Parts: sequence; C-alpha cells; structure tokens
Amino acid sequence: MTTNLDTRIETLGAARFANPAGYGFYTDDRNRVLFRSVYPEEELATSDFAAARCFEEAGPREKIYFEPSKVKVGIVTCGGLCPGLNDVIRALVMELHYRYNVRYIIGFRYGYEGMVERHGHPPLELTPERVTDILGLGGSILASSRGPQDVAEMADYLQKLGINILFTIGGDGTLRGALALSQECKRRGMEIAIVGVPKTIDNDIQYIQKTFGFSTAVSEAVKAINAAHVEAIGAPNGIGLVKLMGRHSGFIAANATLASRHVNYLLIPEKDFDLEGPGAFLEHLEARIKNRGHALIVVAEGAGQKFFNTTTQKDKSGNTKLEDIGWYLRNRIMDYFASRGMEVSLKYIDPSYTIRAVPANPEDSIFCGFLAQNAVHAAMAGKTEMVVGFWNNIFTYVPIKMAVAERKILHTKRSTLWRAVLATTGQPDELVIRCS
Amino acid sequence: MTTNLDTRIETLGAARFANPAGYGFYTDDRNRVLFRSVYPEEELATSDFAAARCFEEAGPREKIYFEPSKVKVGIVTCGGLCPGLNDVIRALVMELHYRYNVRYIIGFRYGYEGMVERHGHPPLELTPERVTDILGLGGSILASSRGPQDVAEMADYLQKLGINILFTIGGDGTLRGALALSQECKRRGMEIAIVGVPKTIDNDIQYIQKTFGFSTAVSEAVKAINAAHVEAIGAPNGIGLVKLMGRHSGFIAANATLASRHVNYLLIPEKDFDLEGPGAFLEHLEARIKNRGHALIVVAEGAGQKFFNTTTQKDKSGNTKLEDIGWYLRNRIMDYFASRGMEVSLKYIDPSYTIRAVPANPEDSIFCGFLAQNAVHAAMAGKTEMVVGFWNNIFTYVPIKMAVAERKILHTKRSTLWRAVLATTGQPDELVIRCS
Amino acid sequence: MTTNLDTRIETLGAARFANPAGYGFYTDDRNRVLFRSVYPEEELATSDFAAARCFEEAGPREKIYFEPSKVKVGIVTCGGLCPGLNDVIRALVMELHYRYNVRYIIGFRYGYEGMVERHGHPPLELTPERVTDILGLGGSILASSRGPQDVAEMADYLQKLGINILFTIGGDGTLRGALALSQECKRRGMEIAIVGVPKTIDNDIQYIQKTFGFSTAVSEAVKAINAAHVEAIGAPNGIGLVKLMGRHSGFIAANATLASRHVNYLLIPEKDFDLEGPGAFLEHLEARIKNRGHALIVVAEGAGQKFFNTTTQKDKSGNTKLEDIGWYLRNRIMDYFASRGMEVSLKYIDPSYTIRAVPANPEDSIFCGFLAQNAVHAAMAGKTEMVVGFWNNIFTYVPIKMAVAERKILHTKRSTLWRAVLATTGQPDELVIRCS
Amino acid sequence: MTTNLDTRIETLGAARFANPAGYGFYTDDRNRVLFRSVYPEEELATSDFAAARCFEEAGPREKIYFEPSKVKVGIVTCGGLCPGLNDVIRALVMELHYRYNVRYIIGFRYGYEGMVERHGHPPLELTPERVTDILGLGGSILASSRGPQDVAEMADYLQKLGINILFTIGGDGTLRGALALSQECKRRGMEIAIVGVPKTIDNDIQYIQKTFGFSTAVSEAVKAINAAHVEAIGAPNGIGLVKLMGRHSGFIAANATLASRHVNYLLIPEKDFDLEGPGAFLEHLEARIKNRGHALIVVAEGAGQKFFNTTTQKDKSGNTKLEDIGWYLRNRIMDYFASRGMEVSLKYIDPSYTIRAVPANPEDSIFCGFLAQNAVHAAMAGKTEMVVGFWNNIFTYVPIKMAVAERKILHTKRSTLWRAVLATTGQPDELVIRCS
Repeated sequence: MTTNLDTRIETLGAARFANPAGYGFYTDDRNRVLFRSVYPEEELATSDFAAARCFEEAGPREKIYFEPSKVKVGIVTCGGLCPGLNDVIRALVMELHYRYNVRYIIGFRYGYEGMVERHGHPPLELTPERVTDILGLGGSILASSRGPQDVAEMADYLQKLGINILFTIGGDGTLRGALALSQECKRRGMEIAIVGVPKTIDNDIQYIQKTFGFSTAVSEAVKAINAAHVEAIGAPNGIGLVKLMGRHSGFIAANATLASRHVNYLLIPEKDFDLEGPGAFLEHLEARIKNRGHALIVVAEGAGQKFFNTTTQKDKSGNTKLEDIGWYLRNRIMDYFASRGMEVSLKYIDPSYTIRAVPANPEDSIFCGFLAQNAVHAAMAGKTEMVVGFWNNIFTYVPIKMAVAERKILHTKRSTLWRAVLATTGQPDELVIRCS
Repeated sequence: MTTNLDTRIETLGAARFANPAGYGFYTDDRNRVLFRSVYPEEELATSDFAAARCFEEAGPREKIYFEPSKVKVGIVTCGGLCPGLNDVIRALVMELHYRYNVRYIIGFRYGYEGMVERHGHPPLELTPERVTDILGLGGSILASSRGPQDVAEMADYLQKLGINILFTIGGDGTLRGALALSQECKRRGMEIAIVGVPKTIDNDIQYIQKTFGFSTAVSEAVKAINAAHVEAIGAPNGIGLVKLMGRHSGFIAANATLASRHVNYLLIPEKDFDLEGPGAFLEHLEARIKNRGHALIVVAEGAGQKFFNTTTQKDKSGNTKLEDIGWYLRNRIMDYFASRGMEVSLKYIDPSYTIRAVPANPEDSIFCGFLAQNAVHAAMAGKTEMVVGFWNNIFTYVPIKMAVAERKILHTKRSTLWRAVLATTGQPDELVIRCS
Repeated sequence: MTTNLDTRIETLGAARFANPAGYGFYTDDRNRVLFRSVYPEEELATSDFAAARCFEEAGPREKIYFEPSKVKVGIVTCGGLCPGLNDVIRALVMELHYRYNVRYIIGFRYGYEGMVERHGHPPLELTPERVTDILGLGGSILASSRGPQDVAEMADYLQKLGINILFTIGGDGTLRGALALSQECKRRGMEIAIVGVPKTIDNDIQYIQKTFGFSTAVSEAVKAINAAHVEAIGAPNGIGLVKLMGRHSGFIAANATLASRHVNYLLIPEKDFDLEGPGAFLEHLEARIKNRGHALIVVAEGAGQKFFNTTTQKDKSGNTKLEDIGWYLRNRIMDYFASRGMEVSLKYIDPSYTIRAVPANPEDSIFCGFLAQNAVHAAMAGKTEMVVGFWNNIFTYVPIKMAVAERKILHTKRSTLWRAVLATTGQPDELVIRCS
Repeated sequence: MTTNLDTRIETLGAARFANPAGYGFYTDDRNRVLFRSVYPEEELATSDFAAARCFEEAGPREKIYFEPSKVKVGIVTCGGLCPGLNDVIRALVMELHYRYNVRYIIGFRYGYEGMVERHGHPPLELTPERVTDILGLGGSILASSRGPQDVAEMADYLQKLGINILFTIGGDGTLRGALALSQECKRRGMEIAIVGVPKTIDNDIQYIQKTFGFSTAVSEAVKAINAAHVEAIGAPNGIGLVKLMGRHSGFIAANATLASRHVNYLLIPEKDFDLEGPGAFLEHLEARIKNRGHALIVVAEGAGQKFFNTTTQKDKSGNTKLEDIGWYLRNRIMDYFASRGMEVSLKYIDPSYTIRAVPANPEDSIFCGFLAQNAVHAAMAGKTEMVVGFWNNIFTYVPIKMAVAERKILHTKRSTLWRAVLATTGQPDELVIRCS
C-alpha cells in the first residue's frame, strides 16, 4: 500500500439525524480495519497486540520433518458426505506426489471403520492416475461412516502399515477422534503426524471462517427455496416451507435466505421462537397471509427443539438425534389455519441429501485445493494434532484442541449476518410471546 | 476467543530436510495471523501499528446526514455487463425503501449516457415492486454504456432532478468519472453524496479483495475449460485453447484454472512469455504433446500483447484496444506444428460474453446484497467520493482516489495464487527464451 | 422418399440361435413402420385401414370461425404446477396477438376459482409486453388452484365478460370441468370455443404421447436419483431410496431410471410387488446388499397402495389421497434389516415440489410453443371440446371425451419401456411372493 | 384404442373468415393422423398402402445369428464429438454383456485411425466395470478422429482380431466408410455384421427424425443466445449475434431459436438471403434497431456461403471447409452501420465446442440407451450394413445405402418448423433483394 494514500473518507458534513433503519446496533465511524493481517511473532511481541491473539500462518516450510522417500501417508474421510471431499483427496495426492515426491499413499475406506483391520475394508492405493478424474464426482471415493472406533485398534493398524502421516477429513467428532488417536500413538512412541482438514457442511467449526462444501450446499439450498417460492405464489394463500441442514447453527439457512431474497421467515437453532400466542410466529404468519396472500418459511433442522420432549437419543457420531421440526411445523401451521377456518395451501420441501451429494462448485473446488495443499505442507513439516483453518482471508494452522473447544454459532446480537437476514426477510427480530 | 486456548501448533520435532517442492518462497513458522481485524482508531493510535494502515469499517451509522423523506436518489450502471448488477440495484432499492424510508429513487438508463438529458433516455422509477423479481436476470435492467460524458451536463441534470445521492456501479473509469462529477458538483455548491459500488469482472480494483460477479464468471469460465479438455483428450494430439477475460490481470483465468485442474499452461498479462526458442512456450508444448498426446492451454485476453505492433487504439471507456491473443496463439501453434510435420487437432474456444451475461450465482448474490446495503449506509451518513470495499473478510469504505491510484494485478513472485497455479498446471515458472 | 430406395435390411444369413436375452417378447422381422403418418380422410376411406383409427391433424386452417377484432379470449391454468405453464401462456398470447390480431386476452387467476366472480380474483390483462419475459420463471403467472367450481357460476362470469374462446391448461379433472362448462354454455346458447392444452406432469393422459413439463421433470428427478446413488455408495451397506411423482403411472420414475442408469429397483403403481416372503422385494434387496454392499431404489408415489388400509380420502381435485409409500418403505426396510441384525445406512430423498416448480427446459419450451400455437389454430377455427395432442411425432386434435375416457399407464407386458427398465436395473420382472 | 370412441372434433359451425395469420400454407380439416404406425408386412401387402413405404421395426429378435460365447465385438466412434457418445458405448457394452452374454468387446481408439494397426493405438478392452461410470463424462472414452482410412488395412485388422460385429458410431462419412469396409469384408468372405449408430449433432441424417446429442446441443445453444440477448438489451442500439453449428442444415439454430424466443433473425443454409439492397437483411435490421433499439441474430455456420469465393477446401472428413459467416456478418453489420453514421454496440458469440463437449442431458441419455440396445439386437440377429433409425416415435432399421443417399435439410416451404420460426422471430419469410 502506497503510504501516502489517504484512507480517510470524505463527508458532506456532520451526520445529524437518528438512523431510522431500526437495526439494534451501529458501526462507529472510527472503527478501523487493519490493512495487514500477518506479522512475524517478534514484531507482535513488541506491540500492544497480545501475541496470543494470533494463529500460525499456513504454507510450505523451508525445512520439512519427514524424508519424502520414506514417508507413508494415510487419508480418511469421516462423517456425513460433503461437496468437495473428492477435491480434497485429489489435491492431497497430487501435492504429495508431484511436489513432495511421496510415493506411498493409501486411502482408508468407510471412515474410521476402515482403520480397524478386522472390519475387512482393505485400503485403496491412491495415485495421480486414480484421482485425476474424480473432481466431477459427488461424495467420496473412499466412502465414509459415522461414529468412533477403538483407538487402540486404529493405532494397531497404523503401526502395522507403518503410516507416518494421517490426514483426517471430518468434523467435530472426527477431530476428537484424531486427537485421541494421536495421544494413543504418542503413548506407543509412534512417530505420526495427524493433520485434519475440517469438514462441516453446516460451517460450524470454531476459528474457521469458512469450510469447504458450504458454498455448494448454499447454492443447492437456494434451488429448494426458489421452488417453494414458486409454489407459494402459485396458489391461493400459498405457504412454502423448506427445511434445511443446520443441527446447531443456521448458517446454510441464513445464507440461502440472503441469496434467494424471497424468504419471509427464517427459523434457526440460535434464535428462540414461540408458535402460538401474541407476538409469536403463527400470529405473525396469519397477518402476512391475510395481507399478502402467500408466505415463504425456511427452518434449519436444529431449530425449535424445545417443542419436543427430548429423550436425547444419539446417533453413531454422538450427535443428539433431532426431532423433525419440518413436519412438526407443517402440522402445526395446518392445524392453526384449520382452527381459524382459513384455507391455505402449504407445500413442504425437505431437500435433504440432494444438497450434500452434489460435486463441489468451482468456488469450493478452489478452496479445497488450498486446504489440502496447506495440510500437506503442515504434515510434511512435522506438525500434528492440528487442522487447517481460514481466517480473514488467510490460511492458518489451528490446534485441534482449540477447534473443538466450542462450536461456532450464528450470533443474533450485534451480528452483521443476522442484521442482513432481518433486512431481507422483513421478519421481526423477536417471534416470542409478548409479555403484556 | 477464550483467552486460555493455546494457538501454538504441536510438532513432532525439528524439521531437518530441505523442502523439495521447488516453490520459490516459503512461509516462516513464526508468521502470525491476527485474530482481530477491526480496532477503534484510538486503540490503534496507542499501539505500534501505524493508524494509517487501516480502512474505515463499513456499516450503518447511528446518525445519518440526510433526512429520508427529502432525499432523492439516483442509480447508474456503467461499463461492461457483470453478473450481479441487478442484485445490487435490487438491494439498494430495498434497503433505501424499507430501512431508510426513502421514497424517491430513479435509475439512469444506459450508464453515464443516461445522465445527460439531451441523449433522451428518461430515467426509470425504481420501487420495490419494480425490482423484486430481477434477481434471476443477467445484465442490468438499467442497461449500460461505455465512456465518459461531459461532467457539466451530468451535473446540470442532477441539479435539475434535485438528486442528493448518486450510486455509481462501475469500474476504474466509472470511479474516475464519479470523482470528476463530484468535484464539479462541489464547485456548484450542490450537496450530493457520490458512492461507488465497485464493479469489475476481472477483479482488478486495488484494495478490494473480491468484486461481485467474479465467482460467477469463474464458474462459467470453468465450463469452457472443461469443454476444451474434453476436446483435447478426444482427438489424436488434441490441443484445447481457451481465451478468457482479463485485460490487465489474470485472476479469472487463474481461478478457473485452479477450479478445473486440467489446464497445462496458463498465460496471463502479468507474466512474460516467449513463443519460439529454447525454453519458450512452443518448445515446451511440443514436448508435452509428444509425451502425453494432448494439452490444454488457457490464455487471458491481455496476455502476450508484446507480440503485437501496438498502435494503441482505445475503446470508448479509454481502454487500450487489445489485439486478439487467442487467434494469434491459435495460428502460431498451428504453424509451428505444421512446420514440424506434426499433425495436431487444435480446438479454440472463446466463451466471451457468455461468461458475463449470466445471472449471479448465490455466492455473488449474497455478496451483492452486502455491498449495496453498505453503500446505502455510507451515502445516508453523508459519506462521499468513496467506494465500498472488502478486506480480510470485512466490508470497508475506501476513498475513490485511493481505489483508482493503481490497478490490482496477480503477483507472480512470492504469491500464494501463482504458486497454486504452478502446482496445478505443472508448467515451469518461466516460459521465456533461455539465455545460454 | 425417393421411391427406388430399398428399405430391406441386409442379413448375414438365417438367425438360428434362441435369443438368450430373456425378454418376455420379441419383435418380428416382418414388422413394418409406416413412413407416412398423415393421410387425407378420402384416401383412408378407400384403403383397408379403418378411418376410425385416426386423429385429426392439428395446424392453422385456411378459414377461421371467429372475427379476430371481435373475439375475446380467456386463459386459465388449473391443478398442480408444471414446468412450461408460462411458456404455454406466452405462446398463446403471442400467437393470438401477432398472428391472429386478437386484442382482448385475459388470464383468470388461481385456476377455476378465478372464473367464479365472487371469489374476488380479478383477471389479469395479457399483452405481449406482459408475457415476453416470463419464460425463465417456474410456476404460472396466473397461479392455479385445485378442484372444480360451479359451472353455472363460471358460465355467468364468461357471459358477463363476453368470452368467446377459453383455453384451459390442465389435466384430467380440468378437462372434465371444461366439458361440463362447455355443455352449460351450449345450454345457454353461448358461442364459446373451449380448447384444452393437456397438462400432466405424470404424462398420463391417454392418446397424448408426451405432455409438456415431463422432460424437465425427468431431468430434475435424475438429480435426486444421482444424489441417492452417491449416498448409497458412500456408506457401508448404503441404501438410497427416492420417491418420485406418479400417482397412477410410473412414467417419470421409469424415465428417470433409464436416464440415471444407477437404479437397482423401480417400483411403480402398474406393477404389483410384495415386501416380505420368498421372491419378494426385501429378500431380493437383502441378497443384493450382501453381494454388492449398496442398493438404489426408486418408488413412484402411487406404488404399493395395497399396503394401506385405504380409507379413500380425496383431495380437492378429486384425486384419492395416497398414503406415503416413501416413508412406509423406508420404515419397512429399516425394520427388516434390524430384524436380521444387519446394519444398513438408508438415505431417503423425496424431491417433491422441487421437480415441478422449475422453469421448462429447452425441449419442453419448444414443445409448449407448438402446443399453444395449435390450440390457437383450433379455437380460431371454431373447434371446441377438444385438446391438442401429440401422436407419432404429429400434433393432433383430440376430443376431450376421448382423452378422459381412460388414463394412460405404463404397460409392463410386451412393453419396450418396461423391457428397458428391466435391462437397466437388472431387477426381476416379478417381485411377488413365489408360490411353492 | 377403444373402438367406440369418436375422434371427430366438435365445431361451433362453419369457418367463414380467411385466416389472417399470413402463413404460406394451411392444414386441411380432413387430414388424419394414423393411430397405428406398425403393421406386419402381410397386412400391408393386402392394403392400399404400398409395402415399400415402410421401415423394418427395431427390437430383439426371437432367434439370433451369432453364438454369444463365440462372438467378438468391436466399437468405434468417428468424426466430431457429440453429447451421448459415452452413453451409447456404455449401453452397447451393458446390453451385450448382461443380456446376450457376450464376453469379448473391444473399443478402437481415435476413430477409424485406431482400426489401422500401424497407427499404433491399441484397442481398449470394454467391460461393465470400465463403462459403468462414464455417463457423466462429455466426449468419448474411445476418442475419435476425422477422415477415412484404407479399407483393406481396416479389414486386415478386423480379420486378425477375429471381430464378428462392428458398431460404428458416426455420421454420413462414417456410414459410407462402414459400407465400403463391409463390402471389402464380404469380398474376403469374412462374416461380420456392421451396424451403425447414427451420430450427427446437426440432426441432418435422412430418415432419422432425431439423433442423439441434439437435445443437449440445443440446450447449450440456448445459453449462448440468452447471453447475446442480455448483451443486446444492455446497451444503446445493442446487437447480439450468435453463430451456431449447422453446416448444411439449420436444425440446431432453429430449435434453439424456438426455445429462446428472443431471436429476431434466424439465418440458415437452407434459406437464401441478401445483405444489402431493398428488402435485404441489413435494411430490415436497420429499421428494427431504429424502432426497438436492439436486435438478436442467430446464424448457422453453413448459412450465406454464397458470399464467399469458395475455393472448396475440404477437411479430413471430406467436408467442404466453410468460410466463417459469423465474423463476416459481424464485419458487414459494423461497416453498414458505420456507413450510416449509426452507433451500434455489437456483441458476437461463437459458443463452438462448448455445445458439443458437454455430457448428454437426461433426454439424450435415455435415447442413447434405446439406440444402442436396438443396435445390439440387430447385430446379434445377423443384420448388417444398416443403421438404427427413429421414425414417428418408433425405432427402426435403415439400410446405410438409404441413409446416406441424401442429406436431411430444414424445409422452408410448407414446413411446420419454419412456420414456427417465422412466428417466433417475426422476421419476413424472404430477406432477399426485392425486384422492383
């Protein structure tokens, strides 16, 4: 940046009127966005910025830890499918092979299940020829599975195969598993670098601003929303209702809402709402139908769980099994209008797996490439118990412990994203019962 | 960020081997990525970080300058079409109408041409009803034109219409025009805020990390590349050649190359190359064809202009008219192989306008919404002679003077992007004649 | 056809081996396909081909019945949405306006509901400007509704408005309604031509080989199937299950199966199947999972209704309300494998409205244009109580009485389509309990 | 068809007004479309319909000629790429393997070039595993080449390999080659069935109403047209010009025009037009630009060849090399308006190979499957020197001699298709210089 350029913004004069936009919070004119994001540790140490408030920058290191000709690499994809898995696998293999001259690369099949020998899923040998054409394919050529496996059994198999580097592509549970496995390996004195590529279609891993597959998933979700919009305006008192992914965070639903622009109500896990009563959702919906003749609702799967008598079943990944808010909402809306004697035409769409089984879009493909290359750089340099992150436009290395400490959620207070959602939907910030 | 979380990365031990990857530059383990990007001016003033190295953060201000009921707003789209123009127009109108209660909004037709009354393009009245369904449409409902107009005539018309806020959606030339117009208005004592929404499909505006339409353009470009790939592998000695946009910067070509993964040579304006001679492009291409039987080449339109006897014609926007590197390269390759007696099957694809005339993808739609909302926030607060920027994941306000001071280019030294291109294509960093 | 060209096929000699393909029926070498489909009535009368076995050919007539300047036209879209509705509306308006100089065209809103004045949906005026840009939109700009209305009330409104031509775009129920309305109008001595454009996303109208929207619907259905395929192969013992439209006929499901090629079982209303027992579906499925590790199932919504205690509820269109075979099958499969102690990973996809709310693909757009133009030709020539048909590549006119006399179904005996399904899926022709 | 159903159309009365639509020809009320297309030879022999006016119906025969366990099959794809090639290859292999138990199937690489041993392209072994996942891929896994090869050399190689069945997937030139090769084989006493699957993206093979890839190509062409439309309306006096495939016939251009609905002028090889002079194209274009401010033109590559001094170069397939009508038209239009002092903004799009390198759409995929299965039925039954055809919705067998006797063109007199084009574009039937 040429130093003599002035970044101060010209104004016509002092602002004098109160902002009528009704947003809960405002940005101060004096807020400054740093031009530079990356600093050497030493420089930070001498400044007022605490050194702790930083991540290590990702990238190839001048010196590496492993001797390429001797290193043995394993790759595993765990948990639910996500657009871009094959892009990550391909880029890992290509970078290892062509840049680091690594010749032994295998892929474990069916997630952690394939890392336990007795399950009988022999690993796949991964070469550039094998992976060169997998970009256009959804899913994972290694397949996947849910749930943890015994770390001792996994360590046994790694030891037997002589693996030095393990790339685990997965989410929260996968990362916890990787950590436990790494600790078991250390206990045994095995020298193995375990590096995660964070995978969460919900984009809910903390300290990682964007995860792969998210852009693609949002694009697909928009199609379902647009279909619901067409149905809603296509019938008298038409209501479109779309359920989208998002167990604990409404990022897909919120971003798809912003992209579609037709949504009138967005319901997400992070924001409480009531159904009946003054100020609650159904009353508001009724008013809108009367006024405008149609309405479009998007609900994230984790929203409104308070309506269920949660007996907290868990699936194999340890995720709490959610009750189906989509059908519940559909029925409650139908009942409500029936009780009012209003005829409505409700169309319910649950695009489910169609959103995650597609190939990555170009945006995600590029992103997957960078994630995988940086994962290789880290592992070859001997770094371990870490995931590749992305922060303020820079790729970073984040300790697994830190990434799994808490879950990223969509903040609804002082949040630019939620503010944009309210502006787009026109829904009130609160859809809970008003206390009179 | 919970303060007690340790961001240091675990390693297996000291890295000891030289990195064989052959990248020209490496990242230091001690490089730190700041967690926080935004600081109050005061805090920065007391730290070692110079206050000048910052941008003003975008967002709604608590107080605004204009009285909503009296403000008159004009919108204009200039220069070449770009995916997302209608998204920006829609979001400007919606934010002005629903959030700021502005009721007078007009759109000038055919770019700056429509801001000169005698050209006879009456402005369009813009209301929520008029713009609600324009998201799915490519192009701009206001249409556009190239080239500057007389600032005095434009100021006359603005004065006559009583416009207080002008949003100019355009690139480099448009921004310069906006600045000149603003200065003319000041001279006349007119009170008018002129705020730019940066539009450049080439993504080449300085201090703005990402511009709208770019993601969509890359996605479309990938389709052309994939078609060329299919043709190249579908014939004996098949060569696919694709020309993409990029007058001065190869961002579209580079990103489409990363997304497609099949490209063997990327030629961009920022990187010199020779055609014939030892070490030059054609010699390398010949070797590849002999080895592999096919090749895929992507060239940005501004590349290799040194091959032409530049008589520096300019188009109406003041851009230098480029000779067609696509056809030139096609002919040179054909001639070269003919002279060698090698039969090749070259397929040339120039997707041209098909890349920019499509509707914005969801990624770009969302981005357009934020840009437009932040433009409205700025203008209503009385800010002027500025554009909305995006820096390290934060929306910013950038003085026009600064944004037009230089052009953003794709750096090919110490560049993460270029490094990824080399890794993907496998092409040598230099394709110039070797001095023996 | 040049008469001296010989159409006889050269053979190497007499065929001597029994065909091992196992198809239930075979084509005779002596079967001949007529070159010409259309004959003047007179010519047929003198031949051995009975004149009754023909349809009237569609097309513009040299003389017309209505005086263009005086004719008043109404258009109505009824029943469920279908890709191409807007294409039909647009083409009707364009042909009427530009070719027949008709100036009064209105669109009734919300189906037959809008043809009853007291419901308060004023009709929309339809002009070329209004419809020129509606091609890219899913749904119907006129909206739709289900169910019949009182024919007297409809006739009242038509009479009041002075409508001479009514185009009804809809399916079986709509056509019956049109017929009843026409008879009421005749009784009143009203001179009105009622011409149907057949609309059925299920493609189940008799004597009409292909209906608009079907090609688009199949394309969308393929996406859901492909997603289910990716999920099925992406997990240990993965089962993909997709429910598609098709209340009484499995055409969408069968064609999507042929296009996708990954389906292992297709279940349709026209073909009986059992779930448990020797030779039944679940036993076969179990064997496949054990053998191949994954399976992909497509079921049409009207299949397997015998499993339900049909209390024969009807929806407003008079269609019997179907029990949800998708969920039922999902649960039965899960229970079956649970009872066997086999762990499977079943992914259920119901793409529902996403299939019908999209815009028409180019194939359907073209088809819609021809249908609409031929509808206009018929109505202007004074033809009534008919629909436009398509038979052996020729557009025809079919009496409504004939079109509604029975429903078109997918034959599973001596059927080319079913034979292709069996070849693709590899499923046995019969999945019913074997009698021992 | 239930015999007692009456197919006569109800009318309001005798048509009395002349049809104002201005179409050159009209359909007679007495034209009848035969319900049934297929008849046994014997039945036809006794009727007034000449037996010669028929094709043999395609389908599996009860007896076959070759013993499956001994038969050796070769497949070759020739000429330009076309969407669906991989679908055809896959379906041939699947039908041969699973239905006819054929175990020896090879694919020749690079077209006829691969059938000459000395060119050194060893054939590919084709198994179900090899082809199961090729549906999503554009191009041909066998690759292709243009031009004939020496029939003696090809026969040598077939003899050496012991091939009994050869499937040639290609167009006019390929079929002629197949015929010559068959005659050479006969001369040698080789027993080989040669069956063609007709491939022509231009859909210009006579006696075959629809060829595979055409639907996909039209869909892609529509995208280019829509982009040109957006550009045309996006600039003052905007002109969009799109060049599409169609060397001798304008089917792609005409169908894409019907699907897009925005085209104002369609220029095809089958219809003469002049550029300058009264009544010619440019005069008409000028009037339109003045009236409407924009225009959209589609030209097929074979149109207007009369403007060139044809030195009749031929490409390797024996096709006359065409001069580029797209660039020629672009320049003539620019010059014309320059000479008039009218400023226009012309955007030229040549989508070229992007149209043919994409994967088949579902419509084409299904069609490819039927073509391939019927090709297998024919070859296994010992039929030879024939191609699979499609006529009035029925698959047929057509002698190669007949299929190559003349080329299918788009008739512009008494043509339903051309009539629809005129109705859509609004262009005059004649754009030639008026004789005064």
